[in-house]
Parts: sequence; C-alpha cells; structure tokens
Amino acid sequence: MLISQSPYNTTMQEFELLENIFKQNGSLPSNITIPPGDDMGAFTIGNQTVLVTVDQLADGIHFTLETTSIKRIARKAVTRNLSDVAAMGATPIAAICAVSFPKSLASHHAESLLEHIRQTGQTFSCPVIGGDISAWPGKLLISITVFASMQPQHGSPILRSTAQPNDALYVAGPLGGSIIDHNNTIHHLDFTPQLDLAQHLAAEQGSRRPSAMIDISDGLLRDLSHIAKLSNLTAIIDVPQIPISDAALIAAKTSTHPPYHHALTDGEDYQLLFSAPLDAFPSQQTSYHGHTITRIGSLVPRHQSLIMLNLPDGQTVTPQYLGWEHHS
Amino acid sequence: MLISQSPYNTTMQEFELLENIFKQNGSLPSNITIPPGDDMGAFTIGNQTVLVTVDQLADGIHFTLETTSIKRIARKAVTRNLSDVAAMGATPIAAICAVSFPKSLASHHAESLLEHIRQTGQTFSCPVIGGDISAWPGKLLISITVFASMQPQHGSPILRSTAQPNDALYVAGPLGGSIIDHNNTIHHLDFTPQLDLAQHLAAEQGSRRPSAMIDISDGLLRDLSHIAKLSNLTAIIDVPQIPISDAALIAAKTSTHPPYHHALTDGEDYQLLFSAPLDAFPSQQTSYHGHTITRIGSLVPRHQSLIMLNLPDGQTVTPQYLGWEHHS
Repeated sequence: MLISQSPYNTTMQEFELLENIFKQNGSLPSNITIPPGDDMGAFTIGNQTVLVTVDQLADGIHFTLETTSIKRIARKAVTRNLSDVAAMGATPIAAICAVSFPKSLASHHAESLLEHIRQTGQTFSCPVIGGDISAWPGKLLISITVFASMQPQHGSPILRSTAQPNDALYVAGPLGGSIIDHNNTIHHLDFTPQLDLAQHLAAEQGSRRPSAMIDISDGLLRDLSHIAKLSNLTAIIDVPQIPISDAALIAAKTSTHPPYHHALTDGEDYQLLFSAPLDAFPSQQTSYHGHTITRIGSLVPRHQSLIMLNLPDGQTVTPQYLGWEHHS
Repeated sequence: MLISQSPYNTTMQEFELLENIFKQNGSLPSNITIPPGDDMGAFTIGNQTVLVTVDQLADGIHFTLETTSIKRIARKAVTRNLSDVAAMGATPIAAICAVSFPKSLASHHAESLLEHIRQTGQTFSCPVIGGDISAWPGKLLISITVFASMQPQHGSPILRSTAQPNDALYVAGPLGGSIIDHNNTIHHLDFTPQLDLAQHLAAEQGSRRPSAMIDISDGLLRDLSHIAKLSNLTAIIDVPQIPISDAALIAAKTSTHPPYHHALTDGEDYQLLFSAPLDAFPSQQTSYHGHTITRIGSLVPRHQSLIMLNLPDGQTVTPQYLGWEHHS
C-alpha cells in the first residue's frame, strides 16, 4: 500500500513523507494494531481485527488510457490492492472505490470500468460495496480501498518488521520486465495476486510460516529494503539465484542492463518476498502448492547498509539507487 | 459517500452509474449488511459491523488550490467523510488516505497537507492509519476512506431507505450559500461534521430516533430525493419553514434566485436531514443538545413525484432540476 509509484516514475519520496506522519502517530489509540508502515494497516473492533489498504491507479503513471483496455485498467486497480492483502497472509472481505473520470470519457467507458472493477472484486471474493464517482477536467484516477481479515487458522497478520537474523529470503515467482508485452501478457496489468499461496504460507504451523512478508511492487531492492529497515537487519542477495522472468530477458535485449538488473529494480512483479528459517525450504528451489519457492539470500544482523549483493562475478556490492558501490 | 460532486459541477450521473453496479450486486455475500446506496456501506466480521465510506476532494471541483489554504483543503477532505459517518449515527474508528500530488507542488506543501489530514483525523478521534501517495502531472486529488462502527447504545446504522409514511422531515441547521465567504467562514470548507448530534439522535429510545437520515452534501432537494426514492415515499417540503443561512441571503443578493432557492439546491451544507414521527419534535423549532431542529415537511405514500414543494406563494410545485413544474 505504502509505495504507489511505479519505479518508472520515481518523483516523490513517499516513504519519507509518510514517516513524517508516523512520527506524530506515536499516540495512536490502542485499537490501531498495525500503524502506517506495512502493506496494510489494521484496527480492532470488539474481538475482531480488520486490515485495510488503499492504492491509486493513475493514467500516465500506472497505465496509459489511450493504449490500455478499460478491462485491464479496472482489473489492475483491484488486483494491486489484493497483492497487499496477500502480503499479510490475509483474506479479502470487501472493497470500496473512488473514481475521477475525465469529463471527455464516454459514459459507456465509465460504466464499463465500474463493471469490470465490480467483476474483478467478485472474482477474488472481494465485493465492491460502495464508491464515490466524479467527473473532472483531469485524467482518469482510480483509488480502491480493500478490507481484509485473517482466517482463524491463519494466525496473525504477517508483518514487514518481524524478520529474524539468519532467516533465509525467498521469492515466489520470476522477476523483472513487468511492462513487457510477452505472449499477449503484460505482467503488471495481468498478474494474479498471490492470495492462495499467501494463505497456504500463513496456515503453516512450523518454520515455513514466513517471519516477514511483502509483495514486490517497487522492485526487489526497494521492497526488500523495507523488510531490512523495519526488522533492523541487513539483507544479502545472491544475485545468481534470483529467478529471472522471460520478460526481463527480453527487456535486457534493448536496455543497457543485464537481466538481473531488471529483476532487481523493475518492480510491479507482485510476487511475494518473504523471510523464514533456512530449513523452511532447504532446497534452492521448492515446489509448493503449484508455486516455485526460490531462495535468493539471507538476513543478518544490521551492517552499515540495508542490502548487499553477491554479484555473478563474485564481487559483493552495496546497491546505490541504480548504481553500485563496490565493497571488495 | 455516493454523490461526490458539488452542485456547482453536475456533469456525471453518479447515482445512475452506481445503480448499474447495484443491479449486479444482488448476489452480495451475506456479510455485506449495507450494500451500495447509502451514506456508508457495511460488512460484518465475526459479531461486529464495520461501516465504510470514501469521498474524493479534487482541485477545481471541491476547492481551488490557488486560493484555498492547504489546511482548509486537508480539513475538508476528512470532514466530508465524517459527515457521512454522522448520517449513519455512527462513530469513527480510523481513516486511510490516498493523495495524488501535482509534481509542481512544493514538498513542504505536500507534507503540510498530510500533517493537517492527520491532525483533523485526530481532532475527530479518527486516526489516519495508512495511505498511498503519488506525484503526477495532474491536479491535486485526495481520496479518504473512513471506517466507523455503531456504539452498542446507539443501535443499528440509520439508513436512507427506512423512512415511514407520515413521518415529519427535520433539518438540523440553516441551509444555502455554503461557498460564500461570510465573517471569514466559508461553510463548505469550515463546517463541523455533526457527529455529536447524530450520536444523540441514534441513542434516543423513543420517537426521536430518526427513521432515516442523510447528510446534505448535494443540496436539500437531491439528498431528500434519495430518502424518498429508497423509502418509496413522496416528500413534501414546506418551503417557508426551511431555515435559511445568512450566507444564502448574501448569495441571493447577487443571484437571480430567492434565498430559499439557494437553501434547496446549493448543497455542501453538511447538515443532517432526517425523518421521524411528527411527535418527535412537535414544535416548529426545537432546541436539542445545542442544535436547532427545524421541521420542514413530511413524507407521504408515493405520489407521481419524489418531492413536492409548498411554495411561499401558496402554490404546490414539483421541482424539475432547477426549474419548477406547477401543479396547482
């Protein structure tokens, strides 16, 4: 929820802005059980916990209205929220949508968008129960809020801040190239939120239950840095172990970067990244409920930097934005 | 929640668009206890009911960034949602905000906006527990979702659809002219959401508990039409009884309309409009917990039209948009 921008449009330090709010929120009431800073916030009502998240989808940032179908736009507006739900190990309850339509948009397109939002919610057992619709002189902007809860057998929400030293790092799908149109699929529009996988993981009783989890929306490096920072650890990525998507290979053909660079930084993968003990999935790759869990690194007590990379050439580096600062 | 536009910008038939969604939602799961169509939706979790609402605030529609203080913008973004909470007789729990900032906005203004959103939430016991922030090439757009619940002593949420034939219609404050700057107050920006009043009304055990309630955001006529339509009744307004704000008198000096026209149609009054038996507040005006409750009409079994007006000149008319169709 907290980082909305595509990595292709990094113009606002959202995390810093929101941290300014966090600081003032030290006196949050006791029924706010997950304050700002995770994939979802949470409050209790009676003996129940409700998780909430909001994400915006804006023309020109997350999609291009002229070239993207209304159906894909509507779908992504819902699914990127559901990816946050997955990141907590939670189950959706309902959604509420706010849409600002361009005045120039034909009403049948507006109706189609709302209908596809409704259908997507229904597909993922997340009915749309209200909304606010405006027409304005600006571009199309959709903001969707999703509510969720933990099934009793799934325990407490899985946070970003609870990774443990010596945990391994796992990722549940290939990364990179999410904007590439490959076999008529554009991953950042067409991905399936990993709700089923997340609920299997949350239901684990032993070491396989993630100690921390996040969905990769802003790129492996940026999202992993949230786990490392909030858990007060340093993450070490074994770069050759990162599963690279076919789309990242295609992207690398026209960019000046190796494929692993795309996997580290492209973002909008909407794959789950989680920590758990090394013995949770001891093989390098493990088949798990139809998914491939890949071990890509580990967490250690906090060093100077939040993340270190073991590169294919044997060097260990600290990522500096999109460049590299060499250590050895 | 459902009608976002200021009456000064009526360009999208939101209610019709959303009704198209409603129709498809006949198969909503049983835990959705208030479907789209009221001031708030609701779902149950365990034995608890959570109410939710979303409202957008857009530069150029609900405020003008160039001429409105950041503090006022932030305040209104929260308070207009809280007015929906009041309309249900509910109590706020928490809020979540989505903001798309213009790329050109200075970061200290962005921070100030978020801080004032946070402060306003805190003022009304509605802490902000998360958000999504983007910078984009468009204008400032804020979307806030608020969660609420019914205090046990306040009973069930007060709906729009449950007004009864022969109920009287009451309004809890003067109407009209909300965009007028009068004594350094601009009502549509500076109003206080009527949470305290609403909770007093919800706590009533006898006839004073409203049978239906709404907050007047789109003008008395439009909001009353929702109660009439959803309750399958016709509303009759005794126009001379409508409490007229000083700002409406000022507005009438420069418009071509009588003051009561402003009170009927201006909107953004954020006063509570409710139905209850005639004996609930038998005087024309009743002082009630620091508020003045004014009886402005009644509800009768459905006629041909949703609303009829008894005008000051003795004529009875049906309002047609902003004109009048004479009956007698």
